[in-house]
Amino acid sequence: MKNFFSVADVDNLSTIVQEALELKANPNAFRSLGQYKMLGLVFLNPSLRTRLSTQKAALNLGMDVMVMNMDKDGWALETRDGVVMDGTTVEHIREAAAVMGEYCAILGLRSFPSLKDRKEDYSEDLFNKFSSYCKKPLISLESATRHPLQSLTDLITILENTPSTQEVDGQSVSVRAKPKVVLTWAPHVKALPQAVPNSFAEWMCKAQEQGLLDFTITHPAGYELDEQFTQGATITGNQNEALSNADFVYVKNWSSYQEYGKILVTGREWMPTPEKLKVTNRAKIMHCLPVRRDLELSSALLDGPDSLVIQEASNRVWAAQVVLKRILENL
Amino acid sequence: MKNFFSVADVDNLSTIVQEALELKANPNAFRSLGQYKMLGLVFLNPSLRTRLSTQKAALNLGMDVMVMNMDKDGWALETRDGVVMDGTTVEHIREAAAVMGEYCAILGLRSFPSLKDRKEDYSEDLFNKFSSYCKKPLISLESATRHPLQSLTDLITILENTPSTQEVDGQSVSVRAKPKVVLTWAPHVKALPQAVPNSFAEWMCKAQEQGLLDFTITHPAGYELDEQFTQGATITGNQNEALSNADFVYVKNWSSYQEYGKILVTGREWMPTPEKLKVTNRAKIMHCLPVRRDLELSSALLDGPDSLVIQEASNRVWAAQVVLKRILENL
Amino acid sequence: MKNFFSVADVDNLSTIVQEALELKANPNAFRSLGQYKMLGLVFLNPSLRTRLSTQKAALNLGMDVMVMNMDKDGWALETRDGVVMDGTTVEHIREAAAVMGEYCAILGLRSFPSLKDRKEDYSEDLFNKFSSYCKKPLISLESATRHPLQSLTDLITILENTPSTQEVDGQSVSVRAKPKVVLTWAPHVKALPQAVPNSFAEWMCKAQEQGLLDFTITHPAGYELDEQFTQGATITGNQNEALSNADFVYVKNWSSYQEYGKILVTGREWMPTPEKLKVTNRAKIMHCLPVRRDLELSSALLDGPDSLVIQEASNRVWAAQVVLKRILENL
Repeated sequence: MKNFFSVADVDNLSTIVQEALELKANPNAFRSLGQYKMLGLVFLNPSLRTRLSTQKAALNLGMDVMVMNMDKDGWALETRDGVVMDGTTVEHIREAAAVMGEYCAILGLRSFPSLKDRKEDYSEDLFNKFSSYCKKPLISLESATRHPLQSLTDLITILENTPSTQEVDGQSVSVRAKPKVVLTWAPHVKALPQAVPNSFAEWMCKAQEQGLLDFTITHPAGYELDEQFTQGATITGNQNEALSNADFVYVKNWSSYQEYGKILVTGREWMPTPEKLKVTNRAKIMHCLPVRRDLELSSALLDGPDSLVIQEASNRVWAAQVVLKRILENL
Repeated sequence: MKNFFSVADVDNLSTIVQEALELKANPNAFRSLGQYKMLGLVFLNPSLRTRLSTQKAALNLGMDVMVMNMDKDGWALETRDGVVMDGTTVEHIREAAAVMGEYCAILGLRSFPSLKDRKEDYSEDLFNKFSSYCKKPLISLESATRHPLQSLTDLITILENTPSTQEVDGQSVSVRAKPKVVLTWAPHVKALPQAVPNSFAEWMCKAQEQGLLDFTITHPAGYELDEQFTQGATITGNQNEALSNADFVYVKNWSSYQEYGKILVTGREWMPTPEKLKVTNRAKIMHCLPVRRDLELSSALLDGPDSLVIQEASNRVWAAQVVLKRILENL
Repeated sequence: MKNFFSVADVDNLSTIVQEALELKANPNAFRSLGQYKMLGLVFLNPSLRTRLSTQKAALNLGMDVMVMNMDKDGWALETRDGVVMDGTTVEHIREAAAVMGEYCAILGLRSFPSLKDRKEDYSEDLFNKFSSYCKKPLISLESATRHPLQSLTDLITILENTPSTQEVDGQSVSVRAKPKVVLTWAPHVKALPQAVPNSFAEWMCKAQEQGLLDFTITHPAGYELDEQFTQGATITGNQNEALSNADFVYVKNWSSYQEYGKILVTGREWMPTPEKLKVTNRAKIMHCLPVRRDLELSSALLDGPDSLVIQEASNRVWAAQVVLKRILENL
């Protein structure tokens, strides 16, 4: 692996999940692989899970880690070319990225979208420029349109919770179950990026292609995701129909892609509750966190026996570690 | 040791001080004990000494350390149950603590009181919830009502500076001296928590019970501490009487517990000075720092030969290290 | 080496550059030298290159590192003696420095000038007090009047790019070339400290004394640097004359020393461009970064084949590492 930006950076999803689960079983087996190698984590936006899990993954591989919080250091980056820098930006991404590339063997970058200019956000201009100028392998810690470490984590968690054997005529037979995975929109008070649902959708669509699961998306009208991420998914505006027989329900809010960055639906009609989940196959509940309790998702589900949210967050370490391991092996 | 929240987590005070002083003499003797173990330090409020000394203690034990400054990351935690999270809090402590527990073997948490709602502060609700949800050993880096790492440090410093032998008839005889330790209130311009004096008082009361020292508290009327922390202490409103024959004078401001969070006394009448200290047994001066010079404590004392404040701050490392060591040994 | 504050802390410049280049060739050769030694990096002002390069240098030497951002932690230090601390400063530098000295084997400190009170800034009061109170070797990470890690880096970069052999009568002969190095003022929208140009000038003047190069300074009238830094330099107000036959052009803005902290010249007349550089000996372009593109320096030069700015930033690691190595060897 050279970079990690989207599902396109991984061929066989089943294989990478297997490798991640081996790291989970044996976290320190590769402590010498990253020795004397520096990982630089650059945060243009806040982070809790991503920061901690990626740091831990790197330490598990023996790497050194430096964290740079550029949001709080008043270090506004210029990304446009051909402008006279006589305003508020203090450094051009050309220099900033190149310099950090000099100090690090691998870099990670988090950068949220503006939610104002769809074309600019979806061009992934900042991420692409950073990648180009730093001249080192770059891992997305969430970009304007994707959050691939989260999506890989989600896939790990789904397959980890999918039985690989079934009882047939009283005998245990190795049969890969094919779970029904549903992504459902949920309410929120703030306008959130589409990065997590875009990314989840493109990973699930590929997993569906590779025969690992069946994938359905449900959301209110006006919340259609960019079609490049949803090829092959079943999409419906009927939440109840989508949830029917679901094995995994992935709950997430996002703002509109069509009316870019807008909140079109308020009220809690779309919030998953135990009542609504009755039509599922006793579905496991997933959410990338942080979650607004009783706004996005009912407390009863979050605290109930079918919630996977903590296990899911915990698996962030193994997603980051398998990605770092593959990049280190390729240096 | 499973957690470290108050003096109740330690049985024999003399033994833990001895163990801390052995670590001071040999800081790297246990570098393999913490290998591959992650310490997570969560700061909901600023910190200088606590952050650095605890980090250093963990590194001395071979641990990995991750620091999370949640005050500055705009990551306001919800602690109440049963509320719809449609306001400014972005994550519930249930998830935040649980996730950090997944990434770490041991956690530390700093959280100051509001000084507005005494019942809430003294319930230690936030700390207790974090402890319960994180499911890992938790160390208080100062909570609403206590600062136990500081108090253990103070005890280490007092015993370290108490002669264990005396001259009797021209011969050196091993006699444990029993110093007089005085906690005196001092002025400040800001309303400060009672955590440090509460905690110091409960550690000194227990040390008095175990025959290690005699303990006196002095403060202006209205500054009585919660009685749960002062059982057995001599308490007087007469500062001069308290200081008489003192061997250690512990200087600290706090706001009123009775008129909760209020400043009742201004002026510098209660500030310890060389003049006032004349009635002591050439007492050693202690303060947990940071200290407001010539407001809480005179510069002449701070810079004089009897000041222990820097040695005291330095000993923070060994207090943290002995606590981490005991928890690691118990994992 | 005991401290690193100015060029006066180094005797033979050629030797230290050679030692730095050996570390560059073999970064991990001294991983045991710093084992169990703590480096504390204290930032009273923001930092990108300095923070990352010094952290990396310390890790290369096997040290532990703790970073303290005191600008953002609301931890305002009092530096004056004899004042009653009843205002906004929370801790005196006497205690803060002493405590950090207790936790660390070596300290680094960054502190910018106020640009309001020249006498105070040029007294280096804060830096000197910190150095005195911490009682440990102290490295300047940029002080009010100097940035010696940057200047050592600059010298490394200049000598690294200066051929040590020449063709004489068809044979390669070992002849140390003596490049012409020019420091030129350049425009900016903000009033910047004189620390970088002061420091560059004093390092280049000493390098000139030691026969390593020839040094010229050019700036508009009113931008004369303090003469203590420029002894022996050729100084001219004619930028074109200065650039003539230059081998290295070091571009930097600074505010006036005479009319302290003022911006006297606006407009881009002094901005180096390819056109202006035609009179040079195809000079290499240097800048300490961050740089304001097309305000301080034209993009064409920054992105052109003669730009050394990224290599220069990269060399910050080896400057920091040779300084740390020398101090460690002297502990």
